[in-house]
Amino acid sequence: MQKPILPKGTRDFNSEELYKRNYIINIIKDNFSKFGFNPIETPSFERSETLLGKYGEDGERLIFKILKSGNYLKDVDKNDFQVSNLTSKIVDKALRYDLTVPFARYVVQNQNDIIIPYKRYQIQKVWRADRPQKGRYREFLQCDADVIGSKSMMQELDFISLFESVFSDLKLDGCRIKINSRKILLAICEVFDCKDKFSILTNQLDKLDKLDRNSVQENLLASGFDFRTISDIFNIIDLSSNFDKNLEELKSIFKSSIIGSEGLSDIEYICSYFSKNNLSKSELIFDIGLARGIDYYTGLIFEVLPADNLSLEWSNSIAGGGRYDNLTEIFGLKNMSGIGISFGLDRLYLLLDELNLFPQISVNSIKVLLLNFGSNFSYDLIEITNLLRSNNINSEFYPDSVSLKKQLNYANKNKIPYVLFYGEEEKEKKCFTLKEMDSGIQDVLSLDKLIQKLKYSSETEI
Amino acid sequence: MQKPILPKGTRDFNSEELYKRNYIINIIKDNFSKFGFNPIETPSFERSETLLGKYGEDGERLIFKILKSGNYLKDVDKNDFQVSNLTSKIVDKALRYDLTVPFARYVVQNQNDIIIPYKRYQIQKVWRADRPQKGRYREFLQCDADVIGSKSMMQELDFISLFESVFSDLKLDGCRIKINSRKILLAICEVFDCKDKFSILTNQLDKLDKLDRNSVQENLLASGFDFRTISDIFNIIDLSSNFDKNLEELKSIFKSSIIGSEGLSDIEYICSYFSKNNLSKSELIFDIGLARGIDYYTGLIFEVLPADNLSLEWSNSIAGGGRYDNLTEIFGLKNMSGIGISFGLDRLYLLLDELNLFPQISVNSIKVLLLNFGSNFSYDLIEITNLLRSNNINSEFYPDSVSLKKQLNYANKNKIPYVLFYGEEEKEKKCFTLKEMDSGIQDVLSLDKLIQKLKYSSETEI
Repeated sequence: MQKPILPKGTRDFNSEELYKRNYIINIIKDNFSKFGFNPIETPSFERSETLLGKYGEDGERLIFKILKSGNYLKDVDKNDFQVSNLTSKIVDKALRYDLTVPFARYVVQNQNDIIIPYKRYQIQKVWRADRPQKGRYREFLQCDADVIGSKSMMQELDFISLFESVFSDLKLDGCRIKINSRKILLAICEVFDCKDKFSILTNQLDKLDKLDRNSVQENLLASGFDFRTISDIFNIIDLSSNFDKNLEELKSIFKSSIIGSEGLSDIEYICSYFSKNNLSKSELIFDIGLARGIDYYTGLIFEVLPADNLSLEWSNSIAGGGRYDNLTEIFGLKNMSGIGISFGLDRLYLLLDELNLFPQISVNSIKVLLLNFGSNFSYDLIEITNLLRSNNINSEFYPDSVSLKKQLNYANKNKIPYVLFYGEEEKEKKCFTLKEMDSGIQDVLSLDKLIQKLKYSSETEI
Repeated sequence: MQKPILPKGTRDFNSEELYKRNYIINIIKDNFSKFGFNPIETPSFERSETLLGKYGEDGERLIFKILKSGNYLKDVDKNDFQVSNLTSKIVDKALRYDLTVPFARYVVQNQNDIIIPYKRYQIQKVWRADRPQKGRYREFLQCDADVIGSKSMMQELDFISLFESVFSDLKLDGCRIKINSRKILLAICEVFDCKDKFSILTNQLDKLDKLDRNSVQENLLASGFDFRTISDIFNIIDLSSNFDKNLEELKSIFKSSIIGSEGLSDIEYICSYFSKNNLSKSELIFDIGLARGIDYYTGLIFEVLPADNLSLEWSNSIAGGGRYDNLTEIFGLKNMSGIGISFGLDRLYLLLDELNLFPQISVNSIKVLLLNFGSNFSYDLIEITNLLRSNNINSEFYPDSVSLKKQLNYANKNKIPYVLFYGEEEKEKKCFTLKEMDSGIQDVLSLDKLIQKLKYSSETEI
């Protein structure tokens, strides 16, 4: 006998969970449409080459690889019997790690059919062989929107409005939308003459939401940054926390760096808009300590955290994103700056659940259960059930003529509001006895009245 | 530079294709709900043990296997360097091959939480390393509904009603719903004393929709059936084509077989219902030559083909299913007879496309494009766009101040019905110029009138 067990880090979803997940997904979808994004979908797996070399070393380890079909050892030599040599020979496909790289592949492949600037949304699963923990799974749903083909900073502003609109519809207050520019991080490396250490710096800063400041500083020290530089970098990070007051000081720090000045002026463009058009639900925070772990970002980056007055068991972001200038270039299409954001469905779900923000949803959609009084009635039950269904009344019959208690129990547990009695007496008199489960009230009805009653009640209840 | 290429047998879907796919999916979902099924979802991959040994040898070869993460050769000996030994050591997960086995695993794992009889639907992707051809892909969507925990034949009838209801909503006429019982196929093997050849017989009969009759007969001959038996079997198959007339003859052929008599009486129960309650859209066909290739079926089996007056490039079924008595037993739960059906979305899509049965659907949902007359207006454009959106008007701005021609071209290609001019003059006069793209008519409007006009037009158009 086999034990029924799930693979590590994966989950089943029952109907109630799905209804709640769909509540969130539908709000995100509606907002994507409202902002002009149309859906696409890409396959669950891509050719290995498409995915490899895009996510940095840490990401790459987490990609699920699919064994070639058939005799996968056909062209393999016994001397290749080590992971570093073997993998690329026995594997030719891998599960999607995010939606952005497949999107870049899609854009290049369909460049003659799409209209630039091209806006798409994509709500699909991704897979990462990460260590599972609260809010982190090996299979999870991402909800992405991207625009490609325009460098306009208006897009950056629009995505912040999109965040705000989604959170507002979800009734989520106080989300912290953090922004920074990878240009400023690059400029730090210019100013402190450590351009070669850019990815070490961003990788370490990216850990600031999990590790404390001291640990990150020690890691940087161990990675070859000197004490003075680290201290200066964190001073700059602190300056960003009061942008209005410290803007001039930041400008003077980065005055020698063209890219740094650009980054600052991008941030200024955004902050200036939102100083006039306040976000009503969320908080916008400029934070030079925000780095994002993904290699392909080149400009503005976003990360959204729940309100900070919540005591959550988990501290990860609920959304993120950024601008990437060169992603389609790998596949042969240059000068296609893109920008995109991604909502993490699972963390939003956890958050709404903890804050009790899901609306009351009736999971079972069945209006009436037809009770079963023996095989004499089986054809009749099927006929009546189909008749109700053709009147748009969701109905089912109990399939076996077991005890009435058992059948009523089924209706109760499934929260079915009505049961219908159709036995000898009803058949003879050509009528139906309808019982409302909550009140216990029974009515003897003609077919017309039965349909009317069930139809009417389905319109008034939600 | 990498070429942007898809893995063999997989597809991207653009917005238009997704809208059409969702048209079908929503009809199937609505009918599942109407018939009392609630949704669940299971992970895309399962532990290898869960899937292996369930689909017969042919099926098993088509399962996509996922390499263990990390050093997958850690516990592997150099002597295991052959496919037959190596696979089980370097692989511990596999992509879903169908939705039925994961469902059986789900039922057993959640047996304390589910209410018996348990009805669920599941609309998710499955993966098979099949040779791709028209209507057959390596990643495809299945739409399944199953009931578990009741042996009542009323379920069989209900699933035929469900087929009819879905096809009727899709406006698909003349679908051929074929039925048979695996009990009758077992009885054939009893009567002709070849019980050991049951799976050879079903495998060969399953090819009758692709091969001609002679080829199948030759294959049976080569597999050890004698000529006389083959001829007798095909005579029985022919008898089933006129069930009413030949019922007595069939009964006498199978009178010595308990299971054969059971199978015939099951078919009689179904045909008798539908002789009184005619299917209005589809045709019900009893065919002893129908076998289904999947091992776990034990009772009634279904297969649905498009109307036979169509000349299609492909001949595969658009739906199928059957009763399985022992599927949950593998995972430790006995006496849980189940029955289920599955719609193949891709074949339904092809069929509706060829018959031109998709309704006209507007893919782009954007109502108005705000034209861009330079960075002076960028904050204003964003503000106005967000104001329109907050009035539930799907809107976007053009992100760059390129030539008017280019911007209008974007609106045209994306079939956006209105463009909005907001330049020096409008800003000064606090008004907006709205142009209807089709008619070319321009209106100068106040903000209130603008919102009214766009809202009103979004209610009248579909």
